[in-house]
Amino acid sequence: MLPMSSVMAQDAPRFGLAIHGGAGTLSPDNISEEQETAYRAALEEALRAGHAVLADEGTSRAAIIAAIQVMEASELFNAGKGAVFTSEATVELDASIMDGATRQAGAVGGVKTVKSPIQLAEAVMLHSPHVMMVGAGAEAFAQEQGLEQVPNDYFHTERRRRALERVQQREREQQTQGHLLELSEADDHKFGTVGAVALDQQGNLAAGTSTGGMTNKRWGRIGDSPIIGAGTYADNETCAVSATGHGEYFIRGVVAYDIAAMMRYTGLGLTESANAVIHGRLTEMGGTGGVIAMDREGNVAMPFNTTGMYRGQIDAEGNVEVHIFRD
Amino acid sequence: MLPMSSVMAQDAPRFGLAIHGGAGTLSPDNISEEQETAYRAALEEALRAGHAVLADEGTSRAAIIAAIQVMEASELFNAGKGAVFTSEATVELDASIMDGATRQAGAVGGVKTVKSPIQLAEAVMLHSPHVMMVGAGAEAFAQEQGLEQVPNDYFHTERRRRALERVQQREREQQTQGHLLELSEADDHKFGTVGAVALDQQGNLAAGTSTGGMTNKRWGRIGDSPIIGAGTYADNETCAVSATGHGEYFIRGVVAYDIAAMMRYTGLGLTESANAVIHGRLTEMGGTGGVIAMDREGNVAMPFNTTGMYRGQIDAEGNVEVHIFRD
Repeated sequence: MLPMSSVMAQDAPRFGLAIHGGAGTLSPDNISEEQETAYRAALEEALRAGHAVLADEGTSRAAIIAAIQVMEASELFNAGKGAVFTSEATVELDASIMDGATRQAGAVGGVKTVKSPIQLAEAVMLHSPHVMMVGAGAEAFAQEQGLEQVPNDYFHTERRRRALERVQQREREQQTQGHLLELSEADDHKFGTVGAVALDQQGNLAAGTSTGGMTNKRWGRIGDSPIIGAGTYADNETCAVSATGHGEYFIRGVVAYDIAAMMRYTGLGLTESANAVIHGRLTEMGGTGGVIAMDREGNVAMPFNTTGMYRGQIDAEGNVEVHIFRD
Repeated sequence: MLPMSSVMAQDAPRFGLAIHGGAGTLSPDNISEEQETAYRAALEEALRAGHAVLADEGTSRAAIIAAIQVMEASELFNAGKGAVFTSEATVELDASIMDGATRQAGAVGGVKTVKSPIQLAEAVMLHSPHVMMVGAGAEAFAQEQGLEQVPNDYFHTERRRRALERVQQREREQQTQGHLLELSEADDHKFGTVGAVALDQQGNLAAGTSTGGMTNKRWGRIGDSPIIGAGTYADNETCAVSATGHGEYFIRGVVAYDIAAMMRYTGLGLTESANAVIHGRLTEMGGTGGVIAMDREGNVAMPFNTTGMYRGQIDAEGNVEVHIFRD
């Protein structure tokens, strides 16, 4: 006879959510206690927002949007309000979403006036024949869809403006004009991103990612966050993945889909596949960052090769775990 | 003792090139003999341009650029001059390139004044820290790099303008405003693209793709051609792939990388993997189109699930094969 708790666990609906708020050179030395407390509270708020949707039998897609919108609205993360500045001191936002049941997807790049880029990505998926829209065209679509628009300075924060000034000052000093600094030289979480993966009570997976990209980006640079297969991927047959890190490497390595492909074609589980891609192939290429990933059993993997990644998960019972540093 | 021809084949350097000029509803019924002759001649010219580079010990990357530039400069293909029109009667071009030896990549989306988008994609790869640039930013980068720029009407052709008028007329009739027509309803090769894959004498693979996207596209739509993993992928360990077709499905299926992943993780060969992805997963999703793919032995696979695909290949000895219809 099974112990009571196992019986209950089997009968209870299995659902869950995991999120990240960016990876980088994070250590107790460069984050104050106040900051750490604020990040932990924001991550928990995002997790509970997504959990409320799932507990109410909402879809995994609605849950990840709820969680991501908390982080987009927070100044702490490089997404929505609080996003990093481009070289021209504006904010340009990228996001994508994928539905594991249908493998439908939506993505937007370089939007400047849409309050919730993840919501626009969903609208592209649901209400257009396209997967990806960029720039002014994406904004026009947002307007047609009646999504909330804001002036670009809604997204601006003093903290990110100072980060831009520091990076540009250093760039001038190093006479590296035309080339961005490497991650290792950054004094800020330059490659921050937010993302979520979820499994709902219907057994469907979804993944989404939202970001401001990298500080001082120029030339209409698009990172991995709006690239299906690189920054975001979901398929009920394998897993849901959202990535954060030095986006160029995640594009070249097709990182999010590579985890799903490894599961599909080798039969390895979620944790083995996610670890192999992040600690194996990505690291060998010289790429830095991490992913959150969830399979249809609700298992979670959150490998990263930086010193820290803002991350957390919540299970069906509402048990929350939040981490920042390598444990 | 081996027969003479086998000895020669083993001693001779092994290199080759394959190209496509788009897939779609192509049959002897809807292409005149004159058109067929013109397409065959253009495909052969592109193959010979790439072959000349390879025979001269040039890189696979230089060879695919040479081949693609012939097709970009031809009015016959939906890339560069002769590209399809957006809903606003302008031309917006996308392209990407990937180097199999280094897995470096470059991509551009929505460029309007760069004569050779594939060349700009290579410049992004070589001379910027980024993989992908879009819109005005990408054009500014092209200018900094000194690439040839042309007015947008350099790309315009009467044939494509009439195609736009037909599609928009039908759209009005069907009152499907806000939604594009499905491929099956198109009277033109709406999803045309050009691409090339090559193996050079050093044993390195490369892949590239260039396109005008789809007729009547709007809202800054980006298709699969500039998406690494979807429309283009190359890795010496597995294969080089360039795709053409209904791009949204190729993005959602991560088609180009899926072929490489299947080879890597299952040990299947190029032909089996390319067939499984195009005739299996892509077709099951409802996607239409095809790919050209080459492995490091110089084997070529060119599966497609439409009635035709402009395609060809050339081997080290300069033997050319060109096909349009299903054989």
